[in-house]
Amino acid sequence: MLWIDIDRDKPIPLTRQIYCEFRDKILRGEWTAGFKLPSTRKMAQELRISRNVVIEAYDQLFVEGYIESRQGSGYFVAPGIYLEQFARGTDLPQPSPGDQSEGLIDFRSGVPDLEHFPRSLWGKTVQRVCQDAPLSAFGYNRPEGRAELRDVLSRYLYRTRGVQCAPERIVMTSGATQALMLIAKVLLAPESRVLIEDPITQDIQTIFASTGARLCPVPVDACGMAMDKLSATPVNAAPSFVFVTPSHQFPLGTTLTIQRRIQLIQYARSVDCYIVEDDYDSEFRYESPPISSIQGLAPERVIYIGSFSKILSPGLRLGYLVLPEALVERYQKAKWLTDLHTSSIDQLALARFIEEGHLEKYVTRMKKLYKKRRQCLTDALRDTFGDQVAIWGEAAGLHIVAAFSHVRFTPDVVAALEAAGVRVYPVEEHTIAKGRHADKIVLGYGNVGEEKIAEGVARLEKGLALHGMHG
Amino acid sequence: MLWIDIDRDKPIPLTRQIYCEFRDKILRGEWTAGFKLPSTRKMAQELRISRNVVIEAYDQLFVEGYIESRQGSGYFVAPGIYLEQFARGTDLPQPSPGDQSEGLIDFRSGVPDLEHFPRSLWGKTVQRVCQDAPLSAFGYNRPEGRAELRDVLSRYLYRTRGVQCAPERIVMTSGATQALMLIAKVLLAPESRVLIEDPITQDIQTIFASTGARLCPVPVDACGMAMDKLSATPVNAAPSFVFVTPSHQFPLGTTLTIQRRIQLIQYARSVDCYIVEDDYDSEFRYESPPISSIQGLAPERVIYIGSFSKILSPGLRLGYLVLPEALVERYQKAKWLTDLHTSSIDQLALARFIEEGHLEKYVTRMKKLYKKRRQCLTDALRDTFGDQVAIWGEAAGLHIVAAFSHVRFTPDVVAALEAAGVRVYPVEEHTIAKGRHADKIVLGYGNVGEEKIAEGVARLEKGLALHGMHG
Repeated sequence: MLWIDIDRDKPIPLTRQIYCEFRDKILRGEWTAGFKLPSTRKMAQELRISRNVVIEAYDQLFVEGYIESRQGSGYFVAPGIYLEQFARGTDLPQPSPGDQSEGLIDFRSGVPDLEHFPRSLWGKTVQRVCQDAPLSAFGYNRPEGRAELRDVLSRYLYRTRGVQCAPERIVMTSGATQALMLIAKVLLAPESRVLIEDPITQDIQTIFASTGARLCPVPVDACGMAMDKLSATPVNAAPSFVFVTPSHQFPLGTTLTIQRRIQLIQYARSVDCYIVEDDYDSEFRYESPPISSIQGLAPERVIYIGSFSKILSPGLRLGYLVLPEALVERYQKAKWLTDLHTSSIDQLALARFIEEGHLEKYVTRMKKLYKKRRQCLTDALRDTFGDQVAIWGEAAGLHIVAAFSHVRFTPDVVAALEAAGVRVYPVEEHTIAKGRHADKIVLGYGNVGEEKIAEGVARLEKGLALHGMHG
Repeated sequence: MLWIDIDRDKPIPLTRQIYCEFRDKILRGEWTAGFKLPSTRKMAQELRISRNVVIEAYDQLFVEGYIESRQGSGYFVAPGIYLEQFARGTDLPQPSPGDQSEGLIDFRSGVPDLEHFPRSLWGKTVQRVCQDAPLSAFGYNRPEGRAELRDVLSRYLYRTRGVQCAPERIVMTSGATQALMLIAKVLLAPESRVLIEDPITQDIQTIFASTGARLCPVPVDACGMAMDKLSATPVNAAPSFVFVTPSHQFPLGTTLTIQRRIQLIQYARSVDCYIVEDDYDSEFRYESPPISSIQGLAPERVIYIGSFSKILSPGLRLGYLVLPEALVERYQKAKWLTDLHTSSIDQLALARFIEEGHLEKYVTRMKKLYKKRRQCLTDALRDTFGDQVAIWGEAAGLHIVAAFSHVRFTPDVVAALEAAGVRVYPVEEHTIAKGRHADKIVLGYGNVGEEKIAEGVARLEKGLALHGMHG
């Protein structure tokens, strides 16, 4: 009789096939406790394979406790291994299909240009780091990150962003999202309140709200968060923090004025809360140097979030927190219990990339490219839609907001535009108080070439016209 | 008069020095709203520097809103910018000091050998990936990780661990710690219960307990978690999951028998809970092939955690979850809100490293090395302490547990040993029910060379003798 089927053409070793067949018989109860297995010699003959293959399979079954050996009389099924409803899964996993929609022009915001990422330079930097990094870099490291990087970064931040911090105040994170998650973890609880710009990235709302904290929306106008709405919140319900994106508000693109920055600090002092400054997009300011951070004005009040996703690559997942001294230890601990620390090799590569001047050169180069794309986009919008369009937030960043006097961007309209080959993102997706920004869409241009930008705006016009929305 | 001091020797650009001095005067209220600034020409003369430097500083103050320009009559301080208690921090951050204790022999567990990490090969792999990765790898990616890696990994897991999973069941994480944190986030709430091996890694207890969940300890004996203690828990208080480290229990080092694995699955089915299988250390089994996973026996009941920290390097922070189909989406979402995804470049490098056969070769090579170190450690212990020492968990992994008949490892004793130049880790640090394992220490040998192992055991003997504990 043939005990089992084996298949020489399968990409599974014969040992494993025998092991699986026998194991399954035992688990399914076909072979019960005390059942005597065929000898390895007999099995090998029947299957016409080397006896060693069978011995190896039996050894594995023995080691894992499925079978027992009795001196001189062979192998027997061990007791207590019947498992009801046991069914082996499909043999081999299938590769997962790719997913990319073809031909669509996607104005997704927050994606920097990917073509120009200095692959070769970054790759070589990592390679050199692997070659000469201290041994400790390959082991477990401190949660706040490598000292080499924090030293370089604190100098970079002072030079470029007016951020004041000793390296000890920095905790490296896996991107800005992790920084937000850590803030939620350390500072929020179900009874907490957060004052937050409205509109604001949907993901940020979700992260803060997932702690059970209550989000108190503060509207944004052309000068950033409306500070007069701040003082209206009752003081007996002081927030844990105020969340702002002062350099280039997301999504509206406005810059918080210095007067409002001062008012914000005064407010935070009066109710004794923190300010969380998400300084995303600050480096790309087109008509002037970057605006200095709020952190530099009140280092003990501000939790500063930075990221290398926009100025380098989101795929690297590198970001950081600059913290008031009183909070440093709690964040180190929270980072440890989240993922211990961020990849040390990546950190050392970044340190070298900044130290050797590559980062600042790259930012300068990309700023020129983005400036041209921005110009191309705003020109195309104004040429096409004339005074039916108003543009917000063009001073900085990788996206603008276009407000249309004659359109409301409902899901229907967005779907019609997608059918016309262009994907745009309604500001309403990011609002807490609904209905005030239905006329606006976010248009990211960081990763869209100039020809595509022009074509994208043409499709936008066509799509809106087809939907009966041409003015 | 001199308006401000500048210092040409400081590593801070003159523009920034002027900007800071003026800004601070405004913030401190020395210059109030409407105050007229000296002309750029006059400032340049006084400071004996180029006028362009001054113009640049004024531009920055203007752009940030500190000063206003009045046609033809120069710059004036803007209103509303006085900030009480403003004090600028120290100018430049100081590099942080390193920290390493010299000469100490540290039997810390869980650290693999760092000297042998294939730096050069890994560095070149990353470089090649940077060179030829698809553009998408440098942008935002899906939370579960790159398909290229999940495809390779699912085949690797089937081949080496008997884990059955389609690539769609895998979520890549930043190490096993993040996998644990995600499990806590998705499955635990303040009223939840977790059945957990006792003793178990302190960090794991902290991560689960931080959700407010209640940890119900189940003792571990020589066959792993004591299953008869499981059924004693009341069914009306079913746990969210049972947490086990079946390949090489941490810290005790025992392997869960096949009979207990079956009982565990039956228990999980009977109370309808999950099993979390932390398969750390499974690859290094010295006298036989690795024991197959529980996951392969009941893929819909088991959440499987794997990590590349032990078999490659903890510094890379690469791990993964294999999930029951019903849970996949929730974990993808949780990962997205934690840090979006793990570095795509690192993922692609790992995929290539596995696919080209380097990982399995490296594991084979390291297994030989670790086996020799293990032998060296157990020999030294037995030679030195004779029958006063019993050794647990030597079948696998990177650590053993030594139980001493004549010692209780109190903090005093541990400190005395450290003074004698050897650091050991009491099992009691990881116990929930206290007092049952005071005679045991964890001795990690993954990153300790053979000469150091021998010397470490000699210091252990000397340290104990000095403390009056020689038998």
